[in-house]
Amino acid sequence: SRNNFVRPKLTPIRVNGFVCKNPMEVNADDFFKAAALDKPRVTNKVGSNVTLINVMQIAGLNTLGISIARIDYAPLGQNPPHTHPRATEILTVLEGTLYVGFVTSNQPAPNRNKFLSKVLNKGDVFVFPVGLIHFQFNPNPHKPAVAIAALSSQNPGAITIANAVFGSDPQISDDVLAKAFQVEKNTIDWLQGHV
Amino acid sequence: SRNNFVRPKLTPIRVNGFVCKNPMEVNADDFFKAAALDKPRVTNKVGSNVTLINVMQIAGLNTLGISIARIDYAPLGQNPPHTHPRATEILTVLEGTLYVGFVTSNQPAPNRNKFLSKVLNKGDVFVFPVGLIHFQFNPNPHKPAVAIAALSSQNPGAITIANAVFGSDPQISDDVLAKAFQVEKNTIDWLQGHV
Amino acid sequence: SRNNFVRPKLTPIRVNGFVCKNPMEVNADDFFKAAALDKPRVTNKVGSNVTLINVMQIAGLNTLGISIARIDYAPLGQNPPHTHPRATEILTVLEGTLYVGFVTSNQPAPNRNKFLSKVLNKGDVFVFPVGLIHFQFNPNPHKPAVAIAALSSQNPGAITIANAVFGSDPQISDDVLAKAFQVEKNTIDWLQGHV
Amino acid sequence: SRNNFVRPKLTPIRVNGFVCKNPMEVNADDFFKAAALDKPRVTNKVGSNVTLINVMQIAGLNTLGISIARIDYAPLGQNPPHTHPRATEILTVLEGTLYVGFVTSNQPAPNRNKFLSKVLNKGDVFVFPVGLIHFQFNPNPHKPAVAIAALSSQNPGAITIANAVFGSDPQISDDVLAKAFQVEKNTIDWLQGHV
Amino acid sequence: SRNNFVRPKLTPIRVNGFVCKNPMEVNADDFFKAAALDKPRVTNKVGSNVTLINVMQIAGLNTLGISIARIDYAPLGQNPPHTHPRATEILTVLEGTLYVGFVTSNQPAPNRNKFLSKVLNKGDVFVFPVGLIHFQFNPNPHKPAVAIAALSSQNPGAITIANAVFGSDPQISDDVLAKAFQVEKNTIDWLQGHV
Amino acid sequence: SRNNFVRPKLTPIRVNGFVCKNPMEVNADDFFKAAALDKPRVTNKVGSNVTLINVMQIAGLNTLGISIARIDYAPLGQNPPHTHPRATEILTVLEGTLYVGFVTSNQPAPNRNKFLSKVLNKGDVFVFPVGLIHFQFNPNPHKPAVAIAALSSQNPGAITIANAVFGSDPQISDDVLAKAFQVEKNTIDWLQGHV
Repeated sequence: SRNNFVRPKLTPIRVNGFVCKNPMEVNADDFFKAAALDKPRVTNKVGSNVTLINVMQIAGLNTLGISIARIDYAPLGQNPPHTHPRATEILTVLEGTLYVGFVTSNQPAPNRNKFLSKVLNKGDVFVFPVGLIHFQFNPNPHKPAVAIAALSSQNPGAITIANAVFGSDPQISDDVLAKAFQVEKNTIDWLQGHV
Repeated sequence: SRNNFVRPKLTPIRVNGFVCKNPMEVNADDFFKAAALDKPRVTNKVGSNVTLINVMQIAGLNTLGISIARIDYAPLGQNPPHTHPRATEILTVLEGTLYVGFVTSNQPAPNRNKFLSKVLNKGDVFVFPVGLIHFQFNPNPHKPAVAIAALSSQNPGAITIANAVFGSDPQISDDVLAKAFQVEKNTIDWLQGHV
Repeated sequence: SRNNFVRPKLTPIRVNGFVCKNPMEVNADDFFKAAALDKPRVTNKVGSNVTLINVMQIAGLNTLGISIARIDYAPLGQNPPHTHPRATEILTVLEGTLYVGFVTSNQPAPNRNKFLSKVLNKGDVFVFPVGLIHFQFNPNPHKPAVAIAALSSQNPGAITIANAVFGSDPQISDDVLAKAFQVEKNTIDWLQGHV
Repeated sequence: SRNNFVRPKLTPIRVNGFVCKNPMEVNADDFFKAAALDKPRVTNKVGSNVTLINVMQIAGLNTLGISIARIDYAPLGQNPPHTHPRATEILTVLEGTLYVGFVTSNQPAPNRNKFLSKVLNKGDVFVFPVGLIHFQFNPNPHKPAVAIAALSSQNPGAITIANAVFGSDPQISDDVLAKAFQVEKNTIDWLQGHV
Repeated sequence: SRNNFVRPKLTPIRVNGFVCKNPMEVNADDFFKAAALDKPRVTNKVGSNVTLINVMQIAGLNTLGISIARIDYAPLGQNPPHTHPRATEILTVLEGTLYVGFVTSNQPAPNRNKFLSKVLNKGDVFVFPVGLIHFQFNPNPHKPAVAIAALSSQNPGAITIANAVFGSDPQISDDVLAKAFQVEKNTIDWLQGHV
Repeated sequence: SRNNFVRPKLTPIRVNGFVCKNPMEVNADDFFKAAALDKPRVTNKVGSNVTLINVMQIAGLNTLGISIARIDYAPLGQNPPHTHPRATEILTVLEGTLYVGFVTSNQPAPNRNKFLSKVLNKGDVFVFPVGLIHFQFNPNPHKPAVAIAALSSQNPGAITIANAVFGSDPQISDDVLAKAFQVEKNTIDWLQGHV
C-alpha cells in the first residue's frame, strides 16, 4: 500500500518479497534504469519483443503499483494473445500501425466473449482491462512498429495463452485439452508440438 | 472498500454499479439465496456446470469481496482451462475425484509456464491463484464429481480460454491466431469451428 | 496486494509475516491440503467444530485473500455468536438444517441492532458481512448438520463473544462488565465462571 | 479508493452511497463541521457519550478513510465493550484517567483471548486494532474524563456487544444464547431484560 | 476495486463519479482515444505541455488505476515542481535530454528533504514516488524534448507548487506565506504577482 | 492489508519494513505511548510544533492505517503549507483559534487551484484531503493554540513546501526554480537563503 514508502529500519528489510534499502542510503539510482527502452530489440518467433521495466529492474518501484514497457513488432509480427493477472495495460503507438483487441469475459449471450478491436496509428491510446485476453498485431508487411505500454502493477505478470495452454512444463494432458477445445487428441498433440 | 456497508441515504443508491438498498429496508433476504447449490445440474458439452452465487444473485454481497459456487462434473467431464480476472479460487471436493492444475506465468526458464497439478479426493482443498489458467477434470469414467469453490470477489468474472480465443464474437483473425499458435490458418479455422 | 504473487528472490522472504518460498521451488503442495474437510469432527461443548483452512495450512494462500472452512454441528449444536475482524463469510449447508443470523451495527432507531435471521436448508446460501456478530444453530434435536463457509481473507480471525467478553485471560474486571451489561457483579461472576 | 477525489461530472453523483457534489461547487463547508467536539455532552446509562464526526456529518470525507470522535465519560462511566467492524481506533486522553483494554482473537492456547489493558493519563495514546472487542472505563468516582479518538474509516460502524447480543430487535433466541454463554435460559432472559 | 469491471445494470450507473455504460453496449471506442499523443503541442510559459489521457478522455479506464501522458518540453523548458496526490509516475524519454529530480519528505536529519536527481537520455526510465515534489527540465538550449509518462491512477491529479502556493484563487494571505518562506511580505507579493 | 494482524511465526518478521513481534509475546505496551501528547512543546521558527505518534512510536500500528498528532501553535505561529503524500488529515481545535485552508489541484478554469479556507474555533473539525497543500495559522497575537489531528496512515509522511522546494539537500538548481516561479535567479537565491 501507499503507506510504506518511508521506512526507517537499519537492517535489510523486504516488502512484497523484495529487499527494501535503508532510506538513509536511498539514492537516485534506486529509481532509475539507463538505456532501458531506447533501442529496437530482436523480435521472437511470433515477431515481437517486450522490454518490461518492473520492480526487478528498478527496486524503488516496490509497493508503488506501476511499470512500463517498450514493445517492438516486426513486420507482420505480433504480441500474441496473453493476459496480465495483476494489471490493466494502457498502450500508445510510437511508430507504425497496430491492430489490437481484447475479448470480454463469459457474460450471458448476446454478450458472451465479445471481441473488441481497433486499428491504432501513431499517438493513439488503447486500454486492456485487467486479466482480459488481448493482443497487438502489426499488419504492415514492410515496416516494424513500436509501442510504449504502462501497467498498473510493479509486477504485472504475463501469461501467453499458447505457451501456457499448449507449451507448459510438463504438458497438460491431451485428454483434458482435447475435450476443452472439442477436437481430437492428435490435433492437441499437433498444437503442443508447435508452440 | 469495507468502509461502505452501512449507508444511510434514503434514495436509491448504487455502489460498483449495483443498486444499494436503503439500510432502513434491508432484510435477511438481501443476504440469502434459497436452494442455490443443493442439486446436480445438467452438464454442458465439456461435462461440467458451474453454479455461481455472486452479487447478481445476492445483492448484499456488494463491496464484500467474496462469492461461492457449486461445480458439477460428469464422468470424464471437465471445467475447462479458464481464468478469473478478478479473483483467487479455493476449492474442495464434495464427491468423487478431480484432477486439477494451473500454469504459472511467463517467468524466466527453467521456471517458465510450469504446470502444477494434483489429484483431489473428497475433502481435499486446492488454491488457484488470481488470474492464472486452471482447470478441473473428473478422471472417473463412471461417476460424477462435485466441488464447492469460493472466489475472492463478489464479481470474479470467468474467461474460458477455448471460447475466448477460438469462439469470440466476432472471431479473432486467423492470421493473428495462426502465428500465435504457430500453425496453419486452416488448423485455426478448424479450432474456431469446433468451440 | 495482488501484485505480489511472483517473487524472484533467492533468499527466504516473508510477506504478511509468512515465509514466501522461492518461486523456483514452488510446487503443487504449496497450494494443497489433503483430507482437510472430508470427515466430521468431534464437536465442542456448544456443539460445533470449525475446521478452517487458511494461510497457516496452505502457505500459497498468502496475499490472496480467501480461506475455506467446514463446520460440523451436533444435534442442537451451534457455532456461537462471533465475529471475523478481517473477513466477510459466505456459507452453504451441505447436510441438515441451520438457523442463522447476524445483528446490524449501532445505527439510529428504528434501525438499531436489527437481528436478521433465516432457516437454511441444504444448498441454501447466506452471507455474514465483515465484522458483524453472527451465529449458526442446528435446531434439529436428532440429526447433525454440516456447512461449508468461505471467508474473504487468508487469515480472517475469529472472536467468540462469550469467550472474549467473559472468558479472557486475564478476565475483564467485573466492575466494567456489570455496568456494561447492566447487571450485578455476581451475575457477571456467574457468567465468567461458566464460559 | 484514493483515485476519486476530483470528479468533473455535472450531475449529482454518488460514491459509496453518498452524494458527491459537483467539484465546481465544492466549498470549505464541505470539509467543515462547526462546534462539533467542544462541549461535554450528557452521558448515557453506562456513563459515556460518543460524538462521532464521520461522512454523515462532513460529506467531503467520502472515500478518504478517516473520522474523529470526542468521548465523554462520567465518573465511573464507561464506553462499554464494542467493536468497529471497519476501522482501527487510536485514542488520546484530554482530561482525567481511563482504564482501557482489548481482547485478542481466538488463537491457540496459551494465547487465546488475551486481555491487554492499560491505565491512560492525559496525553497517553492507545490503539485498538480493527474488529477487536475493546472498552474505556473512567475509574475516578469523582471526576469526568474526556478523550479524542480517530478511526481509520469515514464510516467505521460500532457494535456495542451488550446491545447487539442481548438487546437486538428482535431478540436472539434464548435457546441459542443459553448454550453460547453456558447458562440457563432464565439468566439470558435476565440479561435481555436489563440491556 | 478490481471487482467491478462487469456490470449488468440496464440503467445508467456511476462508479467513482463517472457514468458506467451498460456492458451490453460497451464497444472498443470506450477504451480508445485517437491521435492523443502523436503531435508536439505548443508549450506554456515555463516551456512544457502535458497531454494527459485519463478517465475523462477514456471512460473505460474507470476503476482500472492507470493513465498515460505525453510531455513536450521546449528548449530550456520545464515541467515545473509539482506533485500527483493520487499516483506514482514512471517516465521514459522519447527525444532529447531531461534533468529530473524529486525531493524526499521531512525525515530526520541528515536525511531531511534530500534532492535526488538524474540526467535522462532517450530510453532511460525514472520513477517519481506518489505525492513527492518532482520536476523535469530540458537543459538543451536548442532542442526540444519529449517524454511518455504513466501514472498509477485513472485520475492522478496534479498540483503545480508555484501555482497552488502563489497563484491560488483567492490568494493565500501574504502574512501566512511570508512567515512560511521566512521573507518579507513584499517578496511574497512579488512572487504572487509573477506566477 | 487488514488481513495481517494475527501472525503465528516464531521468528522475527517484518511487515512494511517494520519488525512484527511474535504474537505470543505481544503485550499492551505494543499499542501504547505514554505522555505523548499532553504537554505544549517549544515551537519552531515559524511558530509550531507537530508531535506525531505513528508506527515508529507505536509498533502495533503497523498495517492499521492511522496515526495521531498534537500540534502546538505560538501566537501568530503556523504549521506552514505542506502535504501528506500518503494520508488525509482530520483536525479539531483544542485551544485557541486557527485559520486553516487547502488548495485544490490543477483543474480547468474557473476551478483551477481554488483556495478553500475557514476560521476554526475550539471544537470545530476540518478535513485536508490526501496530498493537497494545506496549512494552519494562529491569527491571535497573544494566545497560543492547540489542535489534535488524525491521519489515515500509520506512516503519513509530511512535505513542507518551503523546505522541500527552497531548502532541499542539495538545493534544486536556481535555473529551474527561477523559471518555475517566474522570477529572477537572485530572488530564488534569496528564498533559498532564508528557509
